[in-house]
Amino acid sequence: MLHENLSVTSDGRLLFAGRDLRSLADKYGTALYLMDEVHIRRMCRTYVAAMKKAFGESARPLYAGKACAFKRLYRIMMEEKMGIDVVSVGEIYTAKSAGFDLADAYFHSNNKTDEDILFAMENGVGYFVIDNTEEVVAISHLAGEKGICQKILLRITPGIDPHTFEEVATGKVDSKFGSAIETGQAMEITRLALNLPHLDLAGFHCHVGSQVFDSDVFNRSARVMMEFIRSVREETGYLARELDLGGGYGVRYVESDPVYSLENCILEVGETLSAVCRELSLPMPQIRMEPGRSIVAASGLTLYTVGTVKKIPGYKNYVSVNGGMADNPRYALYRSEYTVLLPEKMKEACDFSCSVVGCCCESGDILQENVSLPSSVKRGDLLAVLTTGAYNYSMASHYNRIPNLPVVMLRDGEDYVAVRRETPEDLIRCDL
Amino acid sequence: MLHENLSVTSDGRLLFAGRDLRSLADKYGTALYLMDEVHIRRMCRTYVAAMKKAFGESARPLYAGKACAFKRLYRIMMEEKMGIDVVSVGEIYTAKSAGFDLADAYFHSNNKTDEDILFAMENGVGYFVIDNTEEVVAISHLAGEKGICQKILLRITPGIDPHTFEEVATGKVDSKFGSAIETGQAMEITRLALNLPHLDLAGFHCHVGSQVFDSDVFNRSARVMMEFIRSVREETGYLARELDLGGGYGVRYVESDPVYSLENCILEVGETLSAVCRELSLPMPQIRMEPGRSIVAASGLTLYTVGTVKKIPGYKNYVSVNGGMADNPRYALYRSEYTVLLPEKMKEACDFSCSVVGCCCESGDILQENVSLPSSVKRGDLLAVLTTGAYNYSMASHYNRIPNLPVVMLRDGEDYVAVRRETPEDLIRCDL
Repeated sequence: MLHENLSVTSDGRLLFAGRDLRSLADKYGTALYLMDEVHIRRMCRTYVAAMKKAFGESARPLYAGKACAFKRLYRIMMEEKMGIDVVSVGEIYTAKSAGFDLADAYFHSNNKTDEDILFAMENGVGYFVIDNTEEVVAISHLAGEKGICQKILLRITPGIDPHTFEEVATGKVDSKFGSAIETGQAMEITRLALNLPHLDLAGFHCHVGSQVFDSDVFNRSARVMMEFIRSVREETGYLARELDLGGGYGVRYVESDPVYSLENCILEVGETLSAVCRELSLPMPQIRMEPGRSIVAASGLTLYTVGTVKKIPGYKNYVSVNGGMADNPRYALYRSEYTVLLPEKMKEACDFSCSVVGCCCESGDILQENVSLPSSVKRGDLLAVLTTGAYNYSMASHYNRIPNLPVVMLRDGEDYVAVRRETPEDLIRCDL
Repeated sequence: MLHENLSVTSDGRLLFAGRDLRSLADKYGTALYLMDEVHIRRMCRTYVAAMKKAFGESARPLYAGKACAFKRLYRIMMEEKMGIDVVSVGEIYTAKSAGFDLADAYFHSNNKTDEDILFAMENGVGYFVIDNTEEVVAISHLAGEKGICQKILLRITPGIDPHTFEEVATGKVDSKFGSAIETGQAMEITRLALNLPHLDLAGFHCHVGSQVFDSDVFNRSARVMMEFIRSVREETGYLARELDLGGGYGVRYVESDPVYSLENCILEVGETLSAVCRELSLPMPQIRMEPGRSIVAASGLTLYTVGTVKKIPGYKNYVSVNGGMADNPRYALYRSEYTVLLPEKMKEACDFSCSVVGCCCESGDILQENVSLPSSVKRGDLLAVLTTGAYNYSMASHYNRIPNLPVVMLRDGEDYVAVRRETPEDLIRCDL
């Protein structure tokens, strides 16, 4: 199967985190997000251990909550001794409400307003990852007003195209994020940050892209960033303490996606970084990485109920379900691939070719094209979309005024609600 | 200007619905949806009057709430004597909460669950627009259980490609919606609906597409649907009372979009339909249309504040604002065009070419590419995106855990909150 938390019983039923899906559908209703807590914790532990082994004891992964954020998830991150990457007041507030120590939070975003900055400072966010010169000035000024010295990283664009999807390719020079080394703007913003008061420059951040299976990308960005750190030391005397290599390790959505060892990839980056540090006569900085998708994607599965099977002779077949782009907009946005199957019919031949579509009044509400399902598919069947733990709940909308789905966590045979299902009453609570 | 509710003062300030935008930004904060109530009512009245003139006193427009739905908007629809097109339990609940008489509601959706059907019946929804055979069976069965006779329309696919964007082209035979005339399935589902008990077939519905400027499309679908109505009468003896021509009139997003007279377009469809009815010796059915976008799009404007201006020599310029794909995902989804401007600098030359991007941690978070703004653009400037009344609020997500924006209505110099701004507290209310 696609991931280790998936298996099939002898009578052809899919198990996710060891659980049969019909009983969960009956208990919680569909459509429904399921998340495998054990898998989430295993991925956290893999990162923590591999990074210490590769980069030394000071290394630390920061969970990127934009992949999926709710209170229970932040409590798990706290228990697993992960730092966090937050991108908004909403994420900061959620983490704080979960009891997360915000000294371990790194505040990203390419557009922090003064209100955002003040909110983060007042809540004791440890690090600001500064994106642009306006922000350097604003944070220096507001830290002065607060009488604090704010720890910061500067987001640097290393100029690497990870050959990934356009929407998630962020390490290129032509990007809304960061300051490019190539144009000299990275050095300029570093000088600015070193010259303004109330700022403690801890080091640099880069992020090359998401859904990257090629560990070469991290090796290349590690080298580019260390060379930049050396240039900064030569030109200003400042030596960076921290280097945040960002996120990006890929996740298998379909069987044709590559299999790789996350631990080996991280160890390889460690070897590259050690060699580069020796070559450049620099000490190894404290390393951060920001995994999001690779922590939670394979921990998730979305369970739907089939409503209609429409066969249009000479054209195409459509299978529609009681969810869609409102709970998973990734096909509509990026034509993302997913594995779709009928969890109660795993032993039947999949010889019925169809589009799996959602219930929104929009032709573009497609969950997946060119799906093969058992030809017995009919109203009332369960339908599962795998690997939906990242960028599904976090990107959900109320399009067509559809309430958000609940998130039910699975742990060692137990199940519990981490995020309750929205009700129609929830939808009108802001309507005056 | 693009729409009649936009103008510019002699000192170069944009007025929307006669209002200066700085005072509204100061009062409500940005980012902020503004809606012009007067314009909404004017569009409703245009439809009501033109449809009566074109199709007779029984004709009626149904507002398609998927474009934008909240309680206040349904109250306006009620006051303007509009029917409504609802697509979900959430829209039904919202309309009911606003006091809307659901006897005037038409319930769409290509995937109605039994729970959806029961909810709609229990709340007295007047019409079900049935999409597929599973639904005919389910509604007949559930109406029987309730002891009612449910009025229905059948959604028919006329087989017309409106030459519009793929995502909103729904009249083609290859569609998740409806039953095609071409394949014989439209006649089959009609026979099924006529043969099952507890159903009162009121007539037929079709919807060819959205953002259609060509009234030829409605003329063609009116003809195809009347020919289908004649075939049904010939084969079964049943004569449809109602014909719902769906939605689709376009809205100008940019100056290059066509200017057209909505009233003349509707009158032209009326002439076509009268001629076709005479030709086919059929009485004119009661006509419904389902305008959504054309009622509310130009009634909306989104107001942002600029946070960063990033100039990357040799590449591109980026202007980022305190909003983006979370409040307007239409560029990310469809590469939709919008008119973007600085409302306080309307007299300055627009010689600064840039991408206008949002604050989400995603490269694809773009509001518009290839925008020309005054070169003085800087942090703190107001930035307006025009024509955002449709498919912005209704498609908003919490991506990056960003709270939804408020909707402030403007009416004759007054302003009031129709939907309040979400708070960080709102974001965690479902988190257990």
